[in-house]
Parts: sequence; C-alpha cells; structure tokens
Amino acid sequence: MQPDLLDLHVLHHFRTRSPLTHCMTNDVVQTFTANVLLALGASPAMVIEAEEAEQFAALADALLINVGTLTSPRAQAMRRAIESAVAAGKPWTLDPVAVGALAFRTRFCQQILTLKPAAIRGNASEILALAGMSAGGRGVDTTDTAASALPAAQALARQTNAIVAVTGEVDYVTDGQRTRTIPGGDPLMTRVVGTGCALSAVVAASCSLPGDRLDNVAAACGWMKRAGSVAASQSAGPGSFSGAFIDALWNLEAQA
Amino acid sequence: MQPDLLDLHVLHHFRTRSPLTHCMTNDVVQTFTANVLLALGASPAMVIEAEEAEQFAALADALLINVGTLTSPRAQAMRRAIESAVAAGKPWTLDPVAVGALAFRTRFCQQILTLKPAAIRGNASEILALAGMSAGGRGVDTTDTAASALPAAQALARQTNAIVAVTGEVDYVTDGQRTRTIPGGDPLMTRVVGTGCALSAVVAASCSLPGDRLDNVAAACGWMKRAGSVAASQSAGPGSFSGAFIDALWNLEAQA
Amino acid sequence: MQPDLLDLHVLHHFRTRSPLTHCMTNDVVQTFTANVLLALGASPAMVIEAEEAEQFAALADALLINVGTLTSPRAQAMRRAIESAVAAGKPWTLDPVAVGALAFRTRFCQQILTLKPAAIRGNASEILALAGMSAGGRGVDTTDTAASALPAAQALARQTNAIVAVTGEVDYVTDGQRTRTIPGGDPLMTRVVGTGCALSAVVAASCSLPGDRLDNVAAACGWMKRAGSVAASQSAGPGSFSGAFIDALWNLEAQA
Repeated sequence: MQPDLLDLHVLHHFRTRSPLTHCMTNDVVQTFTANVLLALGASPAMVIEAEEAEQFAALADALLINVGTLTSPRAQAMRRAIESAVAAGKPWTLDPVAVGALAFRTRFCQQILTLKPAAIRGNASEILALAGMSAGGRGVDTTDTAASALPAAQALARQTNAIVAVTGEVDYVTDGQRTRTIPGGDPLMTRVVGTGCALSAVVAASCSLPGDRLDNVAAACGWMKRAGSVAASQSAGPGSFSGAFIDALWNLEAQA
Repeated sequence: MQPDLLDLHVLHHFRTRSPLTHCMTNDVVQTFTANVLLALGASPAMVIEAEEAEQFAALADALLINVGTLTSPRAQAMRRAIESAVAAGKPWTLDPVAVGALAFRTRFCQQILTLKPAAIRGNASEILALAGMSAGGRGVDTTDTAASALPAAQALARQTNAIVAVTGEVDYVTDGQRTRTIPGGDPLMTRVVGTGCALSAVVAASCSLPGDRLDNVAAACGWMKRAGSVAASQSAGPGSFSGAFIDALWNLEAQA
Repeated sequence: MQPDLLDLHVLHHFRTRSPLTHCMTNDVVQTFTANVLLALGASPAMVIEAEEAEQFAALADALLINVGTLTSPRAQAMRRAIESAVAAGKPWTLDPVAVGALAFRTRFCQQILTLKPAAIRGNASEILALAGMSAGGRGVDTTDTAASALPAAQALARQTNAIVAVTGEVDYVTDGQRTRTIPGGDPLMTRVVGTGCALSAVVAASCSLPGDRLDNVAAACGWMKRAGSVAASQSAGPGSFSGAFIDALWNLEAQA
C-alpha cells in the first residue's frame, strides 16, 4: 500500500484529537469495536438508554449507528441520539448491517437516512439495498462485489450528501462526485466478526476530524486494510489474527 | 483422537455448505460464538428483535436458542423464532444454560421443549434438570459428571426426539437408542467463557447438514475437543488458549 | 511489586473458594470480565432478568453492579438484585462508570448508594462525582489523577461504610481510616477496554472472602497491577496484551 493511502497525516490528527466516539452498535462487536478505537487512539463510549444517548450524543465528537442487533427500544434511543447529534452539529455515521434482508431494520434505516448522516459504511448488498437497487443479501454476507455497488454508492452519496464507503475486497469511498479506491487487506478479515463494524466506528470518528471528509474516511479504510495485511502475514488463523490486527493498528506509523 | 471422531467427512460438508446460523444467545458469548462459527466456515447472524427473529429464522439454515442471559422480551422473540423455524422446516437447538438453578428460565425451557428441538446441548446439571432428574447446579457450573447424566440424556432424547449432547470431561451424544462417546479436550476449556455455548452453536449448525444427525452432532463435539487439545498444548494459560482454539478450528484438517 | 502487595495469601483463598460472582455489568466488557474471573479461579455468572437477578443474587457469593450501559429495565433488575443480596447478607460492589457525566446513571447511583455497598471501584472522576465533589469527566475517561480523588474516596468510604478503590496510575484503597497504595501496572491497560470494569468484578468477588475486606480489595488491585506489568512486558500492543494479561492472572503465583 502506498503511504498516501495509509495517510499518516490524518492518522496524526486522529491520535492527537482522540475523538470521543459514541457507539450505538450491535451486541456482537462491542468489545472489538472499543478495542479498535482504543488502538487507534480514539475514546469509545457505548451509551444506549434513550435519555443518556440523547445527552451523550451532544457531548461526544461523533456518533455511530449500527443496526446489527436492532431492537425497538434501541431504535428509539438511536433516533433521539441522532437528532441530538445533528442539533449539536456532531457528525453521525450509519452502518446498515443486513439492510435489505430484514424488514424491520430496513424501514428504520430508510427513516433515519433523512436525518443527514455524515457517512455510511456498508458492504455491497447493504449499499445496494439502501440505494433502492437491492439484489438481496444472505444476512450479513454480501453476494455482490464492492465494485458492482459503486454506482449505487455514488447515487446514495448524492441523495444524502453523506460520504459513502462500500467495502469488500477493494473499498470504494465516494462523495458522489469523487471516488477513492482502497485496495489491500486480507480475506482473513472476513473470518473475524466485527472488522466491518469496527471500520464503521473508525469512519464515524474520522468524520469529526478537520479537513476533507472524503479523505478522512478513505484514510480510515486505509488503516484497516493496512492492519489487515500486516496481521494476516503474522497469523496462523483468525484467532491469532484478531490480536495481531489490534497490535497492527497500534503500530501503524512504525509499519508505514 | 481417532480420525473418525474428528470426522473430516462431516467437516467437509460443514465448510462447503457454510450454514447460515441464526444465534439467539447470551450477552457474554456473542463474539466468541461468532468467531468459532466463522473459523469452521459457517455464517453466523445474531438477530434478536421479535419481528426480525421470526423473519430470519425461516431464512436461516439453523437456529440456536441459548438462555444464558434470558429476558422477557428475548423469551418472546425466541418463541416466535422457534415457531417460524419449525414452520419452515429448519432445525433449532437448545442450550439450557443454568436450567434448574433459576426458575424463570426453567419454566421457559420446559415450555419450548414441546416445540420439537432438533438437538439439546448442556452440561450434566442442565440435562438432569431438563429431564426432571435435577440434582441442582451452581449457576453455570455443573456438580455432576457427564456420565452420571447419560441416562437422563437418553430419556430426554426419547421424550423430545432430539439429539441430546451432555458434555463435560467426556461428551456423550445420544438419540435415545444409540450413544456416541467423545473423549479429548482439555480442562483449560472450562476456564474460557463460551466454549460450551459456542459448541451449542456448532451443534445447531451441524443439524442443518445432510446425513445422520447423531453423527453430525457427534462430529461437532469432536471438532471442539480436538481444537481444545491442540490449543491447550500451545498455550500458557486461558488467554493464549482462546486465540489458539480459534486457530485450531480453522486448521482442523491439517491437524487430523 | 513487593510480594505483600500481590498478596498470595488472599489469592490462595480466592482460588480455593472460587466465589460465585453475579455480574450485572455493561455490554462491552462481559466476555473480558468473565475471562478475568475464570483466570483467577472465580465462577462468574451474568444473570439480568429482574426475577432471576433477585433469585440469583441471594445464591451467589457476591454481586457486581456496573452501570456502563445502564437501561431502565436493567436498573430495575439491579435494584432487585441488590436488595436480595443485602437481605441474604451477600456483599455487592458498585462500579459507577461515567457517573457525573450522565444524568440518568448519576441519579441511579445516588439512589443505590444508600443500599450499603461493600465496595466501590471507580476512576478519579467517578469517585469525585459520587462523593459530590465532581470535576466532570469525558465519558469513561478521567481527567483527574487518582491521588487527587483520595480525599473524596475517604469521605465516600466514611459516608457509605464501603471500601472505596480509586484507581489510575496508582491505585488507592481506603475504608475511610486506613489507606492502601498499590503502584504498578502499565499504561497499556488503558488501551484495552474492560480492565477497570473487570477489576471491579474481582473486587466484588474478593469482598466475599474471609479476613480484612480492605486487605482483600487491595489484594485484588495488586493482582491486576501485577498482571498488567507482566503482560505489557510481553506484548507488541494492546491486542497481544489482552491475551497475555489473562495468562498472567492465571500464572500469578509462578510470577510472584
């Protein structure tokens, strides 16, 4: 990977500012998400009760909404958090896990899509579904390549004014006009739960940084790709990969 | 362990079919359960809101019901998921965590036991309690050996038509007539949270495979025993064991 | 660290008695908390439905209340568990995560503070807030040193009759009269989510041991400091630290 994709300049901002990142995410990836953010120097906090989520979203630097294990109470709390973040001028990021495949979360995501997300990060099936060009996924898996969803991502970015990252073997990050391409990573990343969800949390945090948001989101994708490549080269399987991946994020500058 | 207990034939089926496994499990073991399924080649998905759980249980290949951190809303969602799975002809598996020790979950498990589980996986205390021969456990621990619960497991299997796996130092898998014995593993497995719960998820997924369900469930137990032995031999304690265990599942064929 | 701070005598009690520890804790640290308790020889159980929590709190040896991802239903279940534990003469421990920064949990913690906790474990900001001398934190981070919160910890201990542990670069454990100082550990501990929360679980379990509760809680802090130092010396980053930390807890006696 070229140094410009790793983007040490944005990483320096990230580590220095240590964005306080309000994560409303699914039950499966909470620990991994927090540890990814901590390894990169951010400050994660998971706050979920509606009253607290509303209060905290205005205090935090960034908000992540991940619908992986959405429930009715969680959806209400998320909506209040989003409205609070928007009112306070704080960016929020959507990870539309398995949207298209399941009706309840699809309705919810379509509703909150009108609330001005700063960024959206999903796999090809999810981005296609969110853009109304659904091909149908199988739960959290995607049956489409990221490249095939790029037109959908660009349309979604223009429709919502969000930065849209459609990730897979290659990641594409677009604002509807410009598109960044981020290669790298390793297939082992798909055999550890939460790498995509954690990327969304890093994207959320990166949206709070100064500078061009497209570059900041692309940098976030680049860090994860780079750490995935490094960790895969040091691993005997997904078990050792998981720890090596966190270490690689921690040591990104040394590996550049 | 003999190759027949590891059962590479069933493992090949498992990896090829990649069962989409709907896990409704407890809050403590979500990540580990997902990573165990991913390392074996399955496709896990945790979907918990009642409406979604009902929809997804019919789409998935298999359903896991684990009552470790049962709540009232979760119990309602589980019931709808089970009914949906049964209606769609999809197998569901029960992990009756701490049944017998706690009244709320014991009542719930007795109710859903009538809904035709494909398999039940528990420790000795749990299987004894579920079979109405309770000796009483201490939370999630068992004070009985798996062998002492074998008659209860066989009776439970005949009563429910489920495959019953009672696991411990030695695992026993029975359909009420035939019984498979699976030795191996390592005591370190009891010092890492979720090895039993994750086994139940693998059992659930294995119930979706073609062939003799007794053999498929016994094979699932054998994979976990084998990975436990391999990982223990490579570990300095339960911390390093956890990653080595996932790696060992990933590399099972190479170690056979 | 001197052997007396590691306190092998208390550790021997802990491993022998294997306290059954009822953890009502936040969604982010469930797995790590369970694995820390297991590595030290305790028996963790997460039971959260109000009816079950009330029943189990009377059966368990100790109860942990951690408000990190508090919700309304969880708060009600916690209150019933606390009342049950107190009625049964079982000690309960409070981890007031982010108290002071968020109104809902602050009100809840002030209410349950009257229910005779055996111990309270928090960072400087949390202890200052609980003692009514709040300086304000930034989510789960602390902007104060533990030493600066020692007077607040001592006042809180006298007010509640609890052992209060205010932890940070140096830990202080006080009963309001006597104070133990526990140095050691490593900054990497702050880059892995849950080390503080898991310490609170160990403190909770240690409150069930015979002997001087101040010494028992100080010993718990000492074990975690020692394991943190050992693990940091073996780690390339927070990813490898996490597993090494669990291993170090498992092997504490050998490293003394």
